[in-house]
Amino acid sequence: MRIEIEKSPMVRALSLLQSVTEKKSIPYLSHVLLKAENKKITVSATDLDIFMEITLDADVSSEGSITAPARKLLEVVKEFPEDLLELSTEGRERLVISTDKAVFNLPSLDPEDFPSMIVPQEAEYMPVNRDAMLKVFQKTSYAIPPTENPIGGPGLYWVRVGENLHRFVACDIHRLAAVELTDEELGVGHIKTDVFIPKKGVIELAKFLEENERVEIFVTEQALYAKSETMSFSTRLLEETFSVYETIIPSKRADSVLIPMEALRQVLKRMAIFTDQTWRHVKFSLQNGELEVTAGSPEIGIGREIINVEYSGEPVTMAFNLRYVLDAIGVIRSDHVRFEWTDDLIGGLFLDPDDSSYVSFIMPLVLD
Amino acid sequence: MRIEIEKSPMVRALSLLQSVTEKKSIPYLSHVLLKAENKKITVSATDLDIFMEITLDADVSSEGSITAPARKLLEVVKEFPEDLLELSTEGRERLVISTDKAVFNLPSLDPEDFPSMIVPQEAEYMPVNRDAMLKVFQKTSYAIPPTENPIGGPGLYWVRVGENLHRFVACDIHRLAAVELTDEELGVGHIKTDVFIPKKGVIELAKFLEENERVEIFVTEQALYAKSETMSFSTRLLEETFSVYETIIPSKRADSVLIPMEALRQVLKRMAIFTDQTWRHVKFSLQNGELEVTAGSPEIGIGREIINVEYSGEPVTMAFNLRYVLDAIGVIRSDHVRFEWTDDLIGGLFLDPDDSSYVSFIMPLVLD
Repeated sequence: MRIEIEKSPMVRALSLLQSVTEKKSIPYLSHVLLKAENKKITVSATDLDIFMEITLDADVSSEGSITAPARKLLEVVKEFPEDLLELSTEGRERLVISTDKAVFNLPSLDPEDFPSMIVPQEAEYMPVNRDAMLKVFQKTSYAIPPTENPIGGPGLYWVRVGENLHRFVACDIHRLAAVELTDEELGVGHIKTDVFIPKKGVIELAKFLEENERVEIFVTEQALYAKSETMSFSTRLLEETFSVYETIIPSKRADSVLIPMEALRQVLKRMAIFTDQTWRHVKFSLQNGELEVTAGSPEIGIGREIINVEYSGEPVTMAFNLRYVLDAIGVIRSDHVRFEWTDDLIGGLFLDPDDSSYVSFIMPLVLD
Repeated sequence: MRIEIEKSPMVRALSLLQSVTEKKSIPYLSHVLLKAENKKITVSATDLDIFMEITLDADVSSEGSITAPARKLLEVVKEFPEDLLELSTEGRERLVISTDKAVFNLPSLDPEDFPSMIVPQEAEYMPVNRDAMLKVFQKTSYAIPPTENPIGGPGLYWVRVGENLHRFVACDIHRLAAVELTDEELGVGHIKTDVFIPKKGVIELAKFLEENERVEIFVTEQALYAKSETMSFSTRLLEETFSVYETIIPSKRADSVLIPMEALRQVLKRMAIFTDQTWRHVKFSLQNGELEVTAGSPEIGIGREIINVEYSGEPVTMAFNLRYVLDAIGVIRSDHVRFEWTDDLIGGLFLDPDDSSYVSFIMPLVLD
């Protein structure tokens, strides 16, 4: 293999692939595969669950393939003293990157053994609304639990909930975030749903979507595939279904209040000073046009602030994990957040007055 | 105690004191002491080795003193919603910071028991050239070892080496950095020298100097004291002397070469890619107008680059810990670094062609 390629697209491609790689298990998973043919070079990485491939234009004077350690290759390419890279191989053992004044070589593994992405032959890709899909990921990712939990798996559940409606749900035993989109909004109609995209799959697919304006996807029982003109992607799906979440969101809500967003953010930032590993809660008390927010303990210190709101209902007090509230309101772009609740034992919803497709529910903490 | 004080000088003072405090041992050392009297408030912190006190103007309506956790107090003050802070006490147990809409309180310890800085009555402070002293710290700090080592203690040695000359030396078994200053340059003449300033003392004194243009110092066997109009400082000194360093720097040097600084920095940045916990060295080979720089191993990958230099002497090859070379040249502001050596077993000096007061010596690594 011998090619010449511009530095900056190569840096971009290798940067994107870093988080797909996996450092701890078999050596191949910390390498990228470089494959030069037909005036193109394809750079790919996998952790066996996720595959990502990026094709770049290159001046190929000799076709071939080789692997190299993903991190080291990125570092060398990024710091390379020239704008044009010359990549070549020394047998199957070394990748060489060189100029007149500098030569760098990196160890390789046999490229024939590099795991490759297998797309089913009957694959029927459908164009998806990239921005709608990105919005889903952006508004739900925070609630995807890192590991298996009693309610569901560590992933984002994608389910059809009506003739024309998709719902995406992330949920653990403490909180839930969901976004609903119509077929028209999402851009895909009769696609396989009722699937569970694992957390890392969501993160990497979001990066894929950010890189590519026009994306097509295809879903099977086992995997979700995506492709653009220059990139391919697949992620394994979790093998479970997840209907229990429907019982979590309280359907009857006693009352609601609009809270000014910027004031709430500022107050919560200060209240965070009065939380630690043990004391994580923030307490909301509503009464007579005032939302009193308190946090802390005699040992840590105590913070108490008032935000004026329009509320004249029954006095009510609820406590939440402060971090969860910050996550839930962090993705709301409106001037206000609508807080809805049933009672202090069932919990509260943090909603976007300008976007009814987003739902965020947090279980309350019970204080003595 | 009840005072009003502007937020920003209070944030500045508390920020400066953070690194003096000590979180792990007795509770007092993670607190600051606030003492309000006579239209001033003095904020102080100590780890028992170092004391720092900062005096600020305040509107004192009731004198008194209290302590508060240093980190939490800084966070509250920094995020405080108003520009004017109102600080008051609830007995000796709580410090209260408040506005109309917000109240924060923090736990206190008995201020009477807070350790205080004791300056000897006969103290004769002398004005010191702040910039010269800062230059000393800036150019030698990197070589102060973190812990005791076979050659000396974890500190900066300050010794008089001539009628009119001070030398500051940081040194461990692998490298040495020194700066020499005349009485005139340093600004202090007949001051006690032959003292060892501990590493944390150097770091905190440097911050003290950066904050204050006009500084006076005073040195005893046990401690170094510094003061300005609004701040006081002291650090305990290490109880050892340290003359062995004089034998380390080779007095006879075989040859030298000027290396262009920017090229060397760029090359070393790339060579760092080919180092890890085990392979830390970079190899310099000089021959026929070329400096060849190499690093790495077959497992990590290998980097090799050429820098053109004016050299026509005997071929010579030396290897150093790459990190140490970066440290040594990192404080040189010239376009070139002068590299001087005896042979590949004794090591090399990295010198500033524009500042002969700075000496940096690195022991070589012996490769097979």
